[in-house]
Amino acid sequence: MRALVLQEKNRMAIEEVEPVSTPGPGEVRVAMHTVGICASDVHYWTDGKIGPFVVEAPMVLGHEGAGTVVEIGEGVSHLAPGDRVAMEPGVPDPASRAVKEGHYNVDPAVQFWATPPVHGCLTDEVIHPASYTFKLPENLSFAEGALIEPFSVGMFAATKAGIKPGDVAAIVGSGTIGIMTALAARAGGASRVYISDVQPEKLALLDGLEGIIPVDATQEDLGERVRSETDGWGPQVVFEASGATPAYKSLWSTPAPGGRIVLVGMPIEPVPFDIATAQSRGVSLETVFRYANVYQKAIDLAASDAVDLSRFVSETFTFDNSVQAFERFLEGRPTDVKLQITL
Amino acid sequence: MRALVLQEKNRMAIEEVEPVSTPGPGEVRVAMHTVGICASDVHYWTDGKIGPFVVEAPMVLGHEGAGTVVEIGEGVSHLAPGDRVAMEPGVPDPASRAVKEGHYNVDPAVQFWATPPVHGCLTDEVIHPASYTFKLPENLSFAEGALIEPFSVGMFAATKAGIKPGDVAAIVGSGTIGIMTALAARAGGASRVYISDVQPEKLALLDGLEGIIPVDATQEDLGERVRSETDGWGPQVVFEASGATPAYKSLWSTPAPGGRIVLVGMPIEPVPFDIATAQSRGVSLETVFRYANVYQKAIDLAASDAVDLSRFVSETFTFDNSVQAFERFLEGRPTDVKLQITL
Amino acid sequence: MRALVLQEKNRMAIEEVEPVSTPGPGEVRVAMHTVGICASDVHYWTDGKIGPFVVEAPMVLGHEGAGTVVEIGEGVSHLAPGDRVAMEPGVPDPASRAVKEGHYNVDPAVQFWATPPVHGCLTDEVIHPASYTFKLPENLSFAEGALIEPFSVGMFAATKAGIKPGDVAAIVGSGTIGIMTALAARAGGASRVYISDVQPEKLALLDGLEGIIPVDATQEDLGERVRSETDGWGPQVVFEASGATPAYKSLWSTPAPGGRIVLVGMPIEPVPFDIATAQSRGVSLETVFRYANVYQKAIDLAASDAVDLSRFVSETFTFDNSVQAFERFLEGRPTDVKLQITL
Amino acid sequence: MRALVLQEKNRMAIEEVEPVSTPGPGEVRVAMHTVGICASDVHYWTDGKIGPFVVEAPMVLGHEGAGTVVEIGEGVSHLAPGDRVAMEPGVPDPASRAVKEGHYNVDPAVQFWATPPVHGCLTDEVIHPASYTFKLPENLSFAEGALIEPFSVGMFAATKAGIKPGDVAAIVGSGTIGIMTALAARAGGASRVYISDVQPEKLALLDGLEGIIPVDATQEDLGERVRSETDGWGPQVVFEASGATPAYKSLWSTPAPGGRIVLVGMPIEPVPFDIATAQSRGVSLETVFRYANVYQKAIDLAASDAVDLSRFVSETFTFDNSVQAFERFLEGRPTDVKLQITL
Repeated sequence: MRALVLQEKNRMAIEEVEPVSTPGPGEVRVAMHTVGICASDVHYWTDGKIGPFVVEAPMVLGHEGAGTVVEIGEGVSHLAPGDRVAMEPGVPDPASRAVKEGHYNVDPAVQFWATPPVHGCLTDEVIHPASYTFKLPENLSFAEGALIEPFSVGMFAATKAGIKPGDVAAIVGSGTIGIMTALAARAGGASRVYISDVQPEKLALLDGLEGIIPVDATQEDLGERVRSETDGWGPQVVFEASGATPAYKSLWSTPAPGGRIVLVGMPIEPVPFDIATAQSRGVSLETVFRYANVYQKAIDLAASDAVDLSRFVSETFTFDNSVQAFERFLEGRPTDVKLQITL
Repeated sequence: MRALVLQEKNRMAIEEVEPVSTPGPGEVRVAMHTVGICASDVHYWTDGKIGPFVVEAPMVLGHEGAGTVVEIGEGVSHLAPGDRVAMEPGVPDPASRAVKEGHYNVDPAVQFWATPPVHGCLTDEVIHPASYTFKLPENLSFAEGALIEPFSVGMFAATKAGIKPGDVAAIVGSGTIGIMTALAARAGGASRVYISDVQPEKLALLDGLEGIIPVDATQEDLGERVRSETDGWGPQVVFEASGATPAYKSLWSTPAPGGRIVLVGMPIEPVPFDIATAQSRGVSLETVFRYANVYQKAIDLAASDAVDLSRFVSETFTFDNSVQAFERFLEGRPTDVKLQITL
Repeated sequence: MRALVLQEKNRMAIEEVEPVSTPGPGEVRVAMHTVGICASDVHYWTDGKIGPFVVEAPMVLGHEGAGTVVEIGEGVSHLAPGDRVAMEPGVPDPASRAVKEGHYNVDPAVQFWATPPVHGCLTDEVIHPASYTFKLPENLSFAEGALIEPFSVGMFAATKAGIKPGDVAAIVGSGTIGIMTALAARAGGASRVYISDVQPEKLALLDGLEGIIPVDATQEDLGERVRSETDGWGPQVVFEASGATPAYKSLWSTPAPGGRIVLVGMPIEPVPFDIATAQSRGVSLETVFRYANVYQKAIDLAASDAVDLSRFVSETFTFDNSVQAFERFLEGRPTDVKLQITL
Repeated sequence: MRALVLQEKNRMAIEEVEPVSTPGPGEVRVAMHTVGICASDVHYWTDGKIGPFVVEAPMVLGHEGAGTVVEIGEGVSHLAPGDRVAMEPGVPDPASRAVKEGHYNVDPAVQFWATPPVHGCLTDEVIHPASYTFKLPENLSFAEGALIEPFSVGMFAATKAGIKPGDVAAIVGSGTIGIMTALAARAGGASRVYISDVQPEKLALLDGLEGIIPVDATQEDLGERVRSETDGWGPQVVFEASGATPAYKSLWSTPAPGGRIVLVGMPIEPVPFDIATAQSRGVSLETVFRYANVYQKAIDLAASDAVDLSRFVSETFTFDNSVQAFERFLEGRPTDVKLQITL
């Protein structure tokens, strides 16, 4: 069985690894088909760590995966061999308090693919809990199946935003997560989604998507633009999806009175928080860490006409060319949204 | 100035009435263009009352209106003469506790067009508070502007449903309100909306709308159908939009565990409520009475590609033919969704 | 090992049963000390069933239990032998969707003590998941520990009510669950709790509890009473805790505009639901089925000065006198709140 | 009619002013009895401004007031001359969108006592809208009536916290607002309230209040303390009530997973916000700006045994000694909670 193994910082290769065994009760064995590359995979490769998570032993990369069920364990009834599936990469301790309260994504004991020391899914086969494995409908490709993972971040952001039907949304940053959030917010009930970026190429990626309105952040302020088109009121929900320190300066005054800011971007350092401004507008804030309880809903929306994920696959690499895929990621082409590898 | 006046039960005619005066502070004067006919208008005509509201003096009918601003009062800044507008027909007492708490629709002192003893808008001109008057964007017609009122009921239902992006919704009843709710639920974030009716012609009205799935209630149970297509789980949100007593029998077991029922239909008599079934599924319930804080959002969604209201205007009558319009309503053609009158 | 076994309808006895084995991973073995009798225990005895749950094989009764940990399984860190504990009697399938979404109480696969075919805790020892076992603080007795179970129903009702600090609450029915709800609502933030019953002895049980105001339902209407003392507004939250069909007649008009009704009582037959009245007040409704995520909070409040559960133990029986305890329950003395058995 | 007038920065005196006229429709005339001094009153005196609000003309100070109704305007039915009342000092534009949505406190057009250019209530009589004037029950003194204003800030914080019955709360800062928040959080449903300060005298002010636990911030970390007493979980709700920049350093890691931070303190400068930490715990945040819809509830709780405000009146001055009262405030005695002036 092949796997893309990160031995240590800056050293990554396709290796032969021990084949997976047979699935236990409630588990399935899945033959991987497509895996997307996430910035976190690349960071582990180039830095050997992300925050407290340090690569101290060889680790298989990849957590955005889709494939085909090849074997099911005891008690699995909603899946069968041959089913095309997408897998939620984080599995919590089912006895934890966070799980019981419905926010399993912040269970401190969660096991997440390609987060040290947990192996990822850039390998021929994986064993996974059936309850975190979701059948893909016929009209979704493996490529779209693998995109369900980043789309779920946008979905969770849109869910936490508490969008009410017809709300006006604003998004700071048109990178991969900003785009996924824009799709989720629009399909999730927003009547208009304004999205800003400093790179015009990033905004151009959304060309032709009705209801999604690009704002060139080098030319105009996002909040002012929305206020000018909402009788001075502003957006009810604002997503910060850039993680760029300068973006936070005007963030706190962007929402309408009583509005909400959803913090999706992950700045490495603390950012300046103008509490008095947020208070004077009665703003509430939500934070997004991965996602919980949205995978099925992400699939359902992606399978509808409301969302088309396929246009955001920028290039697909064979498994043998995995390292080239990572190198391409490092180029940072502004027109790249998602690079994927097929096994 | 002309008006369609209901003198008393069964007696209605176009009459000359006293012209409106000049708008006071915070008010606008609007020349009416299009007014939709609602079942309540017809009931006042045929029955002389609805519940506790009794026609005891001549009353102008109509509350679904769109027109053009012709004069603005002191302090009005967001509207100007010439603006095409839709008007929210219910105006609460601004000092009431219900208003301060954000649910002005249930203020006991609310004044609502064509609800005795308040005159409606089937007349040449009206005076209205500017804060309950909304500018129509260029791509919305007067006909669509007048449809914002019933669409707002669907919008409020969808808002109260607390739809999360990608939720699966089910709607009982494909009458005018069921249809408006279906549009709002789908545009408001549902990935799929199943809608049932006993009349196939009613379901056919939604033909071709992606994501809206008709269910013939004479052939299959709505809840079972949704469960069969959601791995046995069921819809997260269920709207009761028929008001028909038999529909409540299976309603309580329709939602998924932890789901929600939104009661939009208004049955005249109490209906049997199987509390134990609702409890065992942990169901919560919301009631809908008109709407609050959704008019602008309804306009924004109607102006987007997510919602097309225009197809639901079944026929348009001249003001002189108002009585014929009401008579046509009484025919109860299953393919009629909304009849409108132009002034 | 002894156990109170219901062999079949009307036949119950203390028997010798197979001792429990050693706790598995994540489990604890508990020596039972005190077990309360619930109406459901009595119903299984007298009727052999409750709704769809039928006693088809001998079953140990009891689900309101407190005891002492005597052995811990692998991986259990928050408990140790000697700890005094209360146990949550319902354990869901951790892989279920209901668990992941945070409402494990409505997981269709939940295993609940003394609900056929699951054995209860009226026995010398039980094995239980550590994550559903809660340490009692020093100032709570075993008797209070066993009362945490019914108090949790009141706690869950108060939680679902979404009580805001200072809200006025009203409760229909001063039986055991009504009382538990009153305690939880008052400690949970209500400034005043009005509680009605048709039996004055029931109301007298709450004598001397500040902020809890008895209302004799044979003399005055609960809603009218609250409105008369809240400037005509009414209670923001209303709990139905009687399950008695006549109580539902005036229920729908009891809440303040925008208020909430929490359905705790479980009527056997459907009750008449006056939807139009609930709609005109913008009422929302919540249903209560057992509880989720409140056991620790129930213990914390019971251990504070805000709640004193001990006064509601009406009489304590030895295990040998278990049958007498059940017979006493059947007498239905109005002053009995909770009967308990010690092992 | 006398008034305490701030002519300009650093210049304040009791002056004769024009008597108020007769109350208009929906208004009442109130003879002031007791007025508390707030830090904002003092800042206007010493600095001449707070943020964007600048004293550019003589302004009457004071916004924490209680008094007696002496005359009522047309249409006022819930108040009568002789009624003892407390007044909500901020009155919004009733036609504003913020009011209609239920968050009138963030209406940009709100008129708030003693916020330039609006006169305050340190004067013999005021005219006020009846809908923002609340009758005091017999068991509340004028001193307590005047304390309803700062208590309402704590009440709004506790309301926004969404405290569920039995939640554990933590508060940073035991100044006046921290204390008011502690009282509201405890009465509002928290089982325990941990409150930290760097001044032991501040914590001593809460001595003897059951369920409120002082934490000396110079000796231990608030979050660690709570975790050590909640099995490692932490507080579900955390209130920041100090506004002191150093307090924000450990704030983001204080809540339990899925917990909430309520920002009550108003730091003048932006503070460092560790978003990644807040995200990894799934924290949500609420901001508090004055209050909305809590005055009646604050009165109801203050009138119950759950809250005793009277102990927090540190000293009372006659109106003639108003300037001394302000000078005493400037001393900043750690044991001073609230200084009041009687007219």
